[in-house]
Amino acid sequence: MPALISDLQKLIQQPSISAKNLGLEECARLVVRIMNRSGIKAETLRLGKNVPPVVYGEVRSKKNPHKTILFYNHYDVQPEEPLELWNDKPFSGKMRGNKIYGRGSTDDKGELITRIKAVEAFIKTTGDVPCNIKFLVEGEEEIGSMHVEEYLKRYQKKLSCDGIIWEFGYVDEKNRPIISLGMKGLLYVELSVQESIRDAHSSLAVLIENPAWRLIEALKTLRDKNGLILIKDWYREVDNFTKEELGVIASEPFDEKSFKREYGIKRFVGNKKGIDIQKAVVGNPTCNIAGFSSGWEGPGAKTVLPSKALVKIDFRLVPKMDPLRQLSRLKRHLKDKGFGDVKIHMIHGEAASRTTISDPFVKIVKKSADESFGTSIISVSSAGTGPMHSFSKVLKAPCISIGSTYVYARIHSPNEFARIDLLKKTTKCMCKIIKKFSA
Amino acid sequence: MPALISDLQKLIQQPSISAKNLGLEECARLVVRIMNRSGIKAETLRLGKNVPPVVYGEVRSKKNPHKTILFYNHYDVQPEEPLELWNDKPFSGKMRGNKIYGRGSTDDKGELITRIKAVEAFIKTTGDVPCNIKFLVEGEEEIGSMHVEEYLKRYQKKLSCDGIIWEFGYVDEKNRPIISLGMKGLLYVELSVQESIRDAHSSLAVLIENPAWRLIEALKTLRDKNGLILIKDWYREVDNFTKEELGVIASEPFDEKSFKREYGIKRFVGNKKGIDIQKAVVGNPTCNIAGFSSGWEGPGAKTVLPSKALVKIDFRLVPKMDPLRQLSRLKRHLKDKGFGDVKIHMIHGEAASRTTISDPFVKIVKKSADESFGTSIISVSSAGTGPMHSFSKVLKAPCISIGSTYVYARIHSPNEFARIDLLKKTTKCMCKIIKKFSA
Repeated sequence: MPALISDLQKLIQQPSISAKNLGLEECARLVVRIMNRSGIKAETLRLGKNVPPVVYGEVRSKKNPHKTILFYNHYDVQPEEPLELWNDKPFSGKMRGNKIYGRGSTDDKGELITRIKAVEAFIKTTGDVPCNIKFLVEGEEEIGSMHVEEYLKRYQKKLSCDGIIWEFGYVDEKNRPIISLGMKGLLYVELSVQESIRDAHSSLAVLIENPAWRLIEALKTLRDKNGLILIKDWYREVDNFTKEELGVIASEPFDEKSFKREYGIKRFVGNKKGIDIQKAVVGNPTCNIAGFSSGWEGPGAKTVLPSKALVKIDFRLVPKMDPLRQLSRLKRHLKDKGFGDVKIHMIHGEAASRTTISDPFVKIVKKSADESFGTSIISVSSAGTGPMHSFSKVLKAPCISIGSTYVYARIHSPNEFARIDLLKKTTKCMCKIIKKFSA
Repeated sequence: MPALISDLQKLIQQPSISAKNLGLEECARLVVRIMNRSGIKAETLRLGKNVPPVVYGEVRSKKNPHKTILFYNHYDVQPEEPLELWNDKPFSGKMRGNKIYGRGSTDDKGELITRIKAVEAFIKTTGDVPCNIKFLVEGEEEIGSMHVEEYLKRYQKKLSCDGIIWEFGYVDEKNRPIISLGMKGLLYVELSVQESIRDAHSSLAVLIENPAWRLIEALKTLRDKNGLILIKDWYREVDNFTKEELGVIASEPFDEKSFKREYGIKRFVGNKKGIDIQKAVVGNPTCNIAGFSSGWEGPGAKTVLPSKALVKIDFRLVPKMDPLRQLSRLKRHLKDKGFGDVKIHMIHGEAASRTTISDPFVKIVKKSADESFGTSIISVSSAGTGPMHSFSKVLKAPCISIGSTYVYARIHSPNEFARIDLLKKTTKCMCKIIKKFSA
């Protein structure tokens, strides 16, 4: 794998922070250069001046031009703050033993380089690739992939394919890659209440309603203490797991003790035990308070009656739950419960996606992973969210998440690192996937 | 009233924010200088290095040295935030027509200046004062007057007096001063919940409890939607109003329409109507959320599962409710309801205080106010809180609140102002009180 490490270092050393609109064009050009040098024909595609470009890469197979695999990745990274917690500079790409440090080292520049190097290996050794290869590398993943569906639709023909490898995949503490067949959806909303037109002295709480109290009254109707969502018809379209899915879920290992230790918790929401834990991770919708803000939040006492209160809620969704339909259910619920005064502002919506276990692509990936890592784990769905649904909907191809991201690699946090052993194994695994997929 | 406005402007222009420990020494020295120039012998008294000084001012009467009136005021102000809502700079002291703008313009620097100018008027015109005059001007009123009782006890002899004029008094929209005979007490607490040792990705909300949800569950047990506090025995010691008090309450005007317009509200908590409104202002304990804080409070979406949630609550208390006893009732309540994990941190406690309507000092103040303002209103108690109980307990003198604070003067809020006509009338009223009190 020539230049895997040095190419990754170059990528890390080029900051590309989408939240700050910093270095995106430069990084896209760097990805094009690295791909071109690897034998991949690369270019940038554009929707307009104000949207970061995507990098499109392609290698046509001479002997097998009728099958195509697409790699989805992203060249943007999370902001590097808080700076003071980094041991090296955030964009150092510094190597220490088995680790390369820096923002983006694993998420997602490390993952991207494993795909590029796998394709390069075929080209350099055989002068051909076993099937057509396509790359879609976007620059807005860390801020919500707002334009990826538009790119997919605009360049649908160019991007057409028969299987998609997702931009990342976790590797657990026992070095087992987790092959995730789906992602949850998301409905992110702000609920706000304004009671009076200005903050008041809190002595007036005898007369003026407090918006935080009002919001709490409303919130209490949304969820019970075990995490069950109380909104009418919320679960209406949710399917039970199939027998096949239940089998996979039951076989998925979950280290309860180390998870509890990692987060310092004694119990799980709703006192879940046994297989209910894994079932929840894969298949439970959630109603999470991501932020609550009202009144005085500084130190000490301020006797204020705030005029406004605001809560940010992320609802994780599972397949068949449509974000907009769920939003209108939330709206109707609040109105029906007498909270028509609670304002609802939708920030983001994303549908869930799942590739069925019986899809032949699953077997190909599983076998490749087992051969490269010794063993691997299939997960029916990740608990997280990404624009996987846009890919499966527009490109109509199965989509699977597998990669080199060590579960404790501090992605999105200071001292993010990539493990070199995992980068190498993942590169091998990508070679195997391409080969088996082409057979 | 020489230099009333320019002295007030000087005081406003000296920021003195106790919550930030900013400018307190400077402001105390400024008060001493202004008093000295007015003929009042002033000095700072101290409890120790870490406690802001109080300003003590004194004028001995030559012709009537056996009667003493004490003015209690404060030189500290509330924080100026939110900055963006001020029309001028917060400490401008800018005059526009009948108004002087700035943090502290009315609360409490405007009030303080009316007392100083009243005393100065006697000194400058007669070379004497009708009775002994004392001032106690503290620097921690806006953060809870934590040391005023200690100052009162330490300097009890120096501060001994026969009547106390409180640091402020409201004037209603019909220019009638409200003579308030009491103040509510306060129990200010922080309730917090920590569920995990670090923030987590919100996809983990299927397993890790959300502390904001937990806190909301706990809060919902404290108060019903009409404002009634649901904690066992909370109202146990609360007396009914006496017939005399009810008579005064019934005669107290309340302009419902203009109050609602001022705050942009359509109804009162619990849909209160008629005399129940005034009874609530004077006699209802409250449970107000002064602040709620958890997770992401910036713009846009962050999918975080916060590790902590914190709420600040101020409970207003009425006579005979002991803050510490109420605190232990709150603690017991949360434990009994299964919320032993909710941490309670008391920030401040203050008992309520009321001077009886039949006290002769009440008549003196009422007559002085009627003569200065045309008419006035007696209120059994203010809805607000101050350390009045400490004064009446340590100095054993009746204590009455009267002053120049226009009810819609936006105290504690952006664009706080003082009305110049009211400052002048209040100065006259203070002269009359001193004179009648000395007779």
